[in-house]
Amino acid sequence: MTLPLAVALGDPAGIGAEVIAKSWERRETDGLPPFFAVGDTAAIEAVWRGPVESIADPSEAADCFPDALPVVRVAAGARVVPGHPDFDGARNSLDSLELAVGLTRSGAASGLVTGPVSKAQLYSIGFVHPGQTEFVAERCGVASDLVAMMLAGPTLRTVPVTTHIALRDVPEALTVERIVAKGRAAARGLQRQFGIARPRLAVAGFNPHAGENGALGREEIEVIEPAIERLREEGHDVSGPHPPDIMFHDRQRRAYDAALCMYHDQALIPLKTLHFDDGVNVTLGLPIVRTSPDHGTAFNIAGRNMADPGATIAALKTAAACVRHMQNA
Amino acid sequence: MTLPLAVALGDPAGIGAEVIAKSWERRETDGLPPFFAVGDTAAIEAVWRGPVESIADPSEAADCFPDALPVVRVAAGARVVPGHPDFDGARNSLDSLELAVGLTRSGAASGLVTGPVSKAQLYSIGFVHPGQTEFVAERCGVASDLVAMMLAGPTLRTVPVTTHIALRDVPEALTVERIVAKGRAAARGLQRQFGIARPRLAVAGFNPHAGENGALGREEIEVIEPAIERLREEGHDVSGPHPPDIMFHDRQRRAYDAALCMYHDQALIPLKTLHFDDGVNVTLGLPIVRTSPDHGTAFNIAGRNMADPGATIAALKTAAACVRHMQNA
Repeated sequence: MTLPLAVALGDPAGIGAEVIAKSWERRETDGLPPFFAVGDTAAIEAVWRGPVESIADPSEAADCFPDALPVVRVAAGARVVPGHPDFDGARNSLDSLELAVGLTRSGAASGLVTGPVSKAQLYSIGFVHPGQTEFVAERCGVASDLVAMMLAGPTLRTVPVTTHIALRDVPEALTVERIVAKGRAAARGLQRQFGIARPRLAVAGFNPHAGENGALGREEIEVIEPAIERLREEGHDVSGPHPPDIMFHDRQRRAYDAALCMYHDQALIPLKTLHFDDGVNVTLGLPIVRTSPDHGTAFNIAGRNMADPGATIAALKTAAACVRHMQNA
Repeated sequence: MTLPLAVALGDPAGIGAEVIAKSWERRETDGLPPFFAVGDTAAIEAVWRGPVESIADPSEAADCFPDALPVVRVAAGARVVPGHPDFDGARNSLDSLELAVGLTRSGAASGLVTGPVSKAQLYSIGFVHPGQTEFVAERCGVASDLVAMMLAGPTLRTVPVTTHIALRDVPEALTVERIVAKGRAAARGLQRQFGIARPRLAVAGFNPHAGENGALGREEIEVIEPAIERLREEGHDVSGPHPPDIMFHDRQRRAYDAALCMYHDQALIPLKTLHFDDGVNVTLGLPIVRTSPDHGTAFNIAGRNMADPGATIAALKTAAACVRHMQNA
């Protein structure tokens, strides 16, 4: 029997409930794997009139799935108003995430898909992690330095070495150790979760033209090239540092399985330019499969039936594919 | 009578001669405007067996163009060997550029297209400008701060505020004055050379998510927003600062005529991801039209009949279109 995926609904005032309900509507046309939501049924019922079924245990999800959206209920303390986030909702999104992680860790769910949360709201209730990824890593007992965020679209995968920090702080944050750790996580993740026996990593430079031998910056010489050398010594297939502007067009993308990028926008600009509606965030380096749609809570359109489930459908399909690869590995 | 375009051949050991000869071969199928090359005929004859005709004056180009590639000859001092740049070739590329600029300035040519030169070679013979653009600006009597480089492809135009400097030096180089100057040059260039009466500029942020109100960097607050304000006060239609990763997908691109970008790769990554083979570099803010194909000398493939003329054809067409718009303005 196929185990279902667990889907944490995210902030109940955001578009998470709407996109997961719309995804369930397309379960047959899009050939989606069985899944169950973890969160407040009220958040779903506030934005959607389809059939919802509360289940007591994930094992009931597969039977229920063809006829109703199965939900492991985590009640929010107060009334849910789409587009109006509050502390109760933030707490509910965290409780739902925690339960969904636990169910996946324990083997009751095959993998985890996380809906969008509001970091600002989470920080306001005392959340101490930079984001959901670090929280999931901690609950899985993995140091957050050892996990990597991969953005995956149909024709491009990118892994940023640094993420949500000011661009002026990136040079200090780029160390040989950090680049090697992210490169290693990327290579292993491509093997285990994407079934690529010998993954090819393309490492981006940091500066224009990859620094032109130091004339336009020295990060390539001082940290990126030594990191590439270390990754090669470990047996990985690594090329670079590549001039960042010429590594993302279609011919070049065919030459690698993932691009290791030095900063947020170097990874996100090409990914979202090409795959705005179907980019999936995959966390590599965890003992479990975890994906998420690559968009935010979109409070401004919540409850208005305007949210596109495309990225959530892609996240569900990618999670299912990663689960298959891990089972076959 | 339509005046011809002047094409400086670039380094005679690079692919400039090959791509312009191949462009001439496609003059009818691609509907190219008449043009003449400025450079050493030997550089063309070393890589191409088609008809070449030396002309004494640009006024002969139009009559000659249907039957042979017209060349205003600037002889290199020594034998040309494709793929093997030398000082004589560098000097020849500079002499050709100087003459082509002069012919365009004087009105003998309608616009200027410049082939690829080797900056390393030029520096070795004492060239003091960062690149051809600054040299052309000086010969046109325009301060290089007032010109802007626009990268133009079929579905995206970008204008970098800073270009060939180390990424760690960009925060210091980003000033309100510089952003305003480039924004102004971009807006005026779109009006004069692209015939867009009221150009819409989208200004990119510098940091991830455009800084998230200062949490991820302060360049947006300290320099980019004040620059946008100034440009608006001057009457320009300016939006931003936009989160850099979500402004280049197709729906978003339709909302602006050019993106003003803070650093080289922010402008070049999306442009080359989308338009690797037909990106054109257009210099805005000059009294003349000047375009160039967005690639280098490619010494490694020179003389091997492997160079693709696509970008040169795009540069010729774009130059002709800009000339038409300036004449109609």
